[in-house]
Amino acid sequence: MGMTLGQLAVRFGCELAGDPEARVERVATLSGADARAISFLANPAYRSQLAGTRAGAVILQARFAAECPVPALVARDPYSTYAQVAAELHPPVPRIPGIHPAAVVATGAQVPASCQVDAGAVLGEGVILGERVRVGARTVLAAGVQVGPDSVLMPAVTLYPDVRIGARCTLHAGVVVGSDGFGFARQADGSHLKVPQLGGVLIGDDVEIGANTTIDRGAIDDTVIGNGVKLDNQIQVGHNVRIGEHTVIAAHTGISGSTTIGARCIVGGKVGFAGHIAIADDVVIGGGTSVTGPIRAPGVYAGGGTPADTLQRWRRNMARFSQLDEIARRLRELEKRVSGTDRK
Amino acid sequence: MGMTLGQLAVRFGCELAGDPEARVERVATLSGADARAISFLANPAYRSQLAGTRAGAVILQARFAAECPVPALVARDPYSTYAQVAAELHPPVPRIPGIHPAAVVATGAQVPASCQVDAGAVLGEGVILGERVRVGARTVLAAGVQVGPDSVLMPAVTLYPDVRIGARCTLHAGVVVGSDGFGFARQADGSHLKVPQLGGVLIGDDVEIGANTTIDRGAIDDTVIGNGVKLDNQIQVGHNVRIGEHTVIAAHTGISGSTTIGARCIVGGKVGFAGHIAIADDVVIGGGTSVTGPIRAPGVYAGGGTPADTLQRWRRNMARFSQLDEIARRLRELEKRVSGTDRK
Amino acid sequence: MGMTLGQLAVRFGCELAGDPEARVERVATLSGADARAISFLANPAYRSQLAGTRAGAVILQARFAAECPVPALVARDPYSTYAQVAAELHPPVPRIPGIHPAAVVATGAQVPASCQVDAGAVLGEGVILGERVRVGARTVLAAGVQVGPDSVLMPAVTLYPDVRIGARCTLHAGVVVGSDGFGFARQADGSHLKVPQLGGVLIGDDVEIGANTTIDRGAIDDTVIGNGVKLDNQIQVGHNVRIGEHTVIAAHTGISGSTTIGARCIVGGKVGFAGHIAIADDVVIGGGTSVTGPIRAPGVYAGGGTPADTLQRWRRNMARFSQLDEIARRLRELEKRVSGTDRK
Repeated sequence: MGMTLGQLAVRFGCELAGDPEARVERVATLSGADARAISFLANPAYRSQLAGTRAGAVILQARFAAECPVPALVARDPYSTYAQVAAELHPPVPRIPGIHPAAVVATGAQVPASCQVDAGAVLGEGVILGERVRVGARTVLAAGVQVGPDSVLMPAVTLYPDVRIGARCTLHAGVVVGSDGFGFARQADGSHLKVPQLGGVLIGDDVEIGANTTIDRGAIDDTVIGNGVKLDNQIQVGHNVRIGEHTVIAAHTGISGSTTIGARCIVGGKVGFAGHIAIADDVVIGGGTSVTGPIRAPGVYAGGGTPADTLQRWRRNMARFSQLDEIARRLRELEKRVSGTDRK
Repeated sequence: MGMTLGQLAVRFGCELAGDPEARVERVATLSGADARAISFLANPAYRSQLAGTRAGAVILQARFAAECPVPALVARDPYSTYAQVAAELHPPVPRIPGIHPAAVVATGAQVPASCQVDAGAVLGEGVILGERVRVGARTVLAAGVQVGPDSVLMPAVTLYPDVRIGARCTLHAGVVVGSDGFGFARQADGSHLKVPQLGGVLIGDDVEIGANTTIDRGAIDDTVIGNGVKLDNQIQVGHNVRIGEHTVIAAHTGISGSTTIGARCIVGGKVGFAGHIAIADDVVIGGGTSVTGPIRAPGVYAGGGTPADTLQRWRRNMARFSQLDEIARRLRELEKRVSGTDRK
Repeated sequence: MGMTLGQLAVRFGCELAGDPEARVERVATLSGADARAISFLANPAYRSQLAGTRAGAVILQARFAAECPVPALVARDPYSTYAQVAAELHPPVPRIPGIHPAAVVATGAQVPASCQVDAGAVLGEGVILGERVRVGARTVLAAGVQVGPDSVLMPAVTLYPDVRIGARCTLHAGVVVGSDGFGFARQADGSHLKVPQLGGVLIGDDVEIGANTTIDRGAIDDTVIGNGVKLDNQIQVGHNVRIGEHTVIAAHTGISGSTTIGARCIVGGKVGFAGHIAIADDVVIGGGTSVTGPIRAPGVYAGGGTPADTLQRWRRNMARFSQLDEIARRLRELEKRVSGTDRK
């Protein structure tokens, strides 16, 4: 059970300072670890906890090795190495192939024998699952949905028709993919005519989608989520949005219809994107930002302008905002004095 | 299959420039269409795609007809005409009347033979469905829920007791209607006493509710959603909110308890409404606005004031916000100079 | 049926002005009540409705008793007394012990005979329910989940493995507890390595969680929700967040990973908390605030600073924000005049 530090060092290409025969069984935080646990130091905010740790070993950068009171696995990127060690020591619950008798699978659905379909799942006609797909309890796949190999649908996911999911994706509970986009044509009397939402949703490989996130189907063409995209919980993705590869978006962010977000972007929580705009590749957007216009160049943005301000400028202006009442008072004072001056 | 341009022109009252016998089978975007597809131009942002389109026909306003390289259906409101044409060419999946054997329907529930109830749906005692209602897989209707004719409940909807839904409504996956409002009475020790939430929810006709939107039951009286209201995804509607007819609200907006929103309002995404306020009819509110006080007159509003600023004023102030650090520096500079002036 | 005013006065420690034999059967609003209903006046905004009420009695503070045209139950805290009276007159639907035949309960799950498990619920191996727990239709409890006595899980709740819920909790429809936290290690090529999310979620006693709220499992240690916490709808709680006892949080608020919120805090709607920060006990935070840094002292905060401004300062600055364009113009004007002055 567990692994020796020597095994971990070889496997993950770390330098080891300590006994290669020492054995760890699980991961733990610096403050919570005991001798059977391995911990890590990645965020410098936690550096103060290093000296007091009782971990069996700590994964860290070379610059912190001298401070480490216990065996150290020195890594260039401790967080990535930690992620790999954690996956090794804590493998996921194994798949149990088979269809639960309380699942409802249409006769025409294709479910390889390697798949696990849990109780209460509902698979419509023409559903096609890849090898080793897991479908959680109560998850619904409408007619014709396709899911690539090794993907995991947690419980209570809902996939509408015309949704295609790639390989190795994870969709968390409460996710809805393929709901109608918000398309209505206003009539003269103030009522609205529904615009049929006829496109689908195409989700690439290695995508993770957080709990209760919703992704609308396209109006005509598909809504497209690129390979490697990671979406946090309760995100709203409007119709015909396109998100580029490896972009990461935090919770409660909303993306209005037909907006395109580039590849490798990092978007904070509660960001709102206007519709019909394009965001370049490699853009970083701070939490809470209103993005009301296009962003054409890589960089770090925040705030509420059009386009969003750079982060540095936003922070300066936000600091001044706290002084705004004082600024207004000083201006009034100055106006009085200058009026006095003028009169001289 | 499909329709001729002549048929479409007659049916939807358009002027046709082109061969009335030409046939289209589906809708497509200007850039994606081939000769068997009909497209449309409504948003001028896409005008540049008109010259290159290979569509079988384009629905557009008269002013763009001369630029159209293919047959044109000239309409006063191309988006509305497109919506009708799309509905004609792409009819919804037909209803398949009947109750799936894996649905659970209480003996006292009234389910007309024209209804479709899918696998895993749960209908409690006293549920009353109108004619031709569809209930999606895993959708739950608590005891006594009423749903009007021709309404569609997508999969995974949850309706609590005392919820009444009108005719021709669509509720998307993950919608929750009738959950308890957030009512607690704070006690001297900092703990909270739950205030029973005893009202219901009354939803009118022709209402559409987006995925994972939540609508709380009233505390005493009902929460009321008027006829023709369209709610996007992940909206939160607090207890005893009232929304007037034909109002349209975009995603992630939250409406605090006992607030009333008028008829025919248009509310952007991520708007927050304080509780116990009234918004007039025909109000337009920009995305991301904090509405902290009442709005008494029709108009376009945005921003964070009390009441929200008019949109024009908000935009001017937001533009100045980007200059705020500079304004503060100029003020400081001026103060120094005026002090110098005074000393003269 | 119902209770006499005398019974209510004795039971809830009120002074009665009126006939102790008069009987009320239900609660109602001041404007909607008839002689068989009891109402209350807690929010002074509704004081104007008192004179016209036809209620059988009104619960109110002594200072309003003289204005009351009908019998009055005088209470120190009318809202709390109302809550108790309402619970007395409108008891919840009684629990019906038993497991519905359409529920799926693993052989190793512990379900006391006093529990109610509804149709379509799925309980995995090793689930342990306390006495009198209710599990709503379609609610899923993963293997090993524990739920304390008298807790109520509404329909369509999803609990992942390693989730422990205390006693007397209520979880509303669509709640997800234990989904993976948003943890990814960025790689040199812009892709992301998933960091295994190995902690659980520990929820105390007397907690209420609103519809479609999501609470992520810890990365290593648990995410912890203290006793008496009340969460509104559509809140997002990140991994390793800790929320202190009796804290109340309104809808659409998001709390980033590893942030700690103190006890007895009151947090408005749409608040965003940055990660890895600590908020003191007894802090009040206005709706829509971005909390980007720690808050070290009790008080009322709002706005977007670091730490958030006090509410008073924020309001003054917001009022000035509405004048920002004017401020900038006045400054420009002053600069011109001072330049003129200088030239003299």
